[in-house]
Amino acid sequence: MSEFDPEKLQKQLNFLVEIDKMKCIYRQNIVIDRSRQEDDASHSWHMAMFSLVMAEYAPPETDMMKVVKMCLVHDLVEVYAGDTFCYDYEAAKSKEKREEEAAVKLFAMLPGDTGNEFRQLWEEFDHPVTKEGRFAAAMDRLQPFILNCNTGGHTWKKANVKREQLYNRLCYVREELPDMWPYFVKMYEKAAADAGLEC
Amino acid sequence: MSEFDPEKLQKQLNFLVEIDKMKCIYRQNIVIDRSRQEDDASHSWHMAMFSLVMAEYAPPETDMMKVVKMCLVHDLVEVYAGDTFCYDYEAAKSKEKREEEAAVKLFAMLPGDTGNEFRQLWEEFDHPVTKEGRFAAAMDRLQPFILNCNTGGHTWKKANVKREQLYNRLCYVREELPDMWPYFVKMYEKAAADAGLEC
Repeated sequence: MSEFDPEKLQKQLNFLVEIDKMKCIYRQNIVIDRSRQEDDASHSWHMAMFSLVMAEYAPPETDMMKVVKMCLVHDLVEVYAGDTFCYDYEAAKSKEKREEEAAVKLFAMLPGDTGNEFRQLWEEFDHPVTKEGRFAAAMDRLQPFILNCNTGGHTWKKANVKREQLYNRLCYVREELPDMWPYFVKMYEKAAADAGLEC
Repeated sequence: MSEFDPEKLQKQLNFLVEIDKMKCIYRQNIVIDRSRQEDDASHSWHMAMFSLVMAEYAPPETDMMKVVKMCLVHDLVEVYAGDTFCYDYEAAKSKEKREEEAAVKLFAMLPGDTGNEFRQLWEEFDHPVTKEGRFAAAMDRLQPFILNCNTGGHTWKKANVKREQLYNRLCYVREELPDMWPYFVKMYEKAAADAGLEC
């Protein structure tokens, strides 16, 4: 239990105020009742819930606390870098540079080790090699997939996303949950047919 | 790592779809850029971030994974029970019954032990006695307090909330973070004066 240092606390509160912006960074997905676009904060919460509910399918000895933390912080850099639509291949070119600059600026706001920890979690998620990073990445892909299956393929329709593009995007789902993959393929086939999508 | 059972998976996905409604349950607070009301999903994410950033002030040997899970699930019953404004003393009378019925309905959707775990986390949060429950409750009160300090006391103004009511609401902050309490009192004094509130 740390002693209370008002300067340190103020920095921590400033960070917590700054990341409130996540609630107003809108993604391409809509929420399931179709009343609004999904925001980054809600997406991060939902992804964390996916990881808790699906935890039993993670590899043995996966550190679930690390996975949940990754879910919570994985999009924080978008506070400055904005949301880059995953099928916007032009915007993707500048994504790495924009997000790196955002990470430097944002995580420096936090005193002590917390800023470094968040940065490391983000990097481990963003270039997933560890089992925690790979499982979190699978949840990040599965969550909008389930949203799309339940909103008439909203994003797929809007961006004319083809089956191959989607399956590329879902690579971590296929690799981390291989037994389930045919089940998700069937879900997609049905959702795409119901929505009248050309795959 | 559990074996894949399609029926079980479908139940888990149905639950994850159902709780998407959290994104459309609006609270009395507004987000800091004042563009919209805060929703339950965004609030839960922000509260979880508060607990990660403030973790160093939790009592020794606090199980932070449990705290974070509590933050994520503490408002799930509102999917059916709706948000009960904390200063609406009339609505508070029926809150317990509404939320109990919601808990039974919602957590029964989940197969295996996860539904029970979520229910227990919610109960431990809702009647906080353990250090995890009390720290999570402190974060649940601190988060809207910081939002109000940064939005001209939006909720306090709207509901004509007096100092005594607020301090009652913040009891877990005062008790769990006693060294900081005078700091938060000063924050309130300044925010209230700036907003021209009668305390």
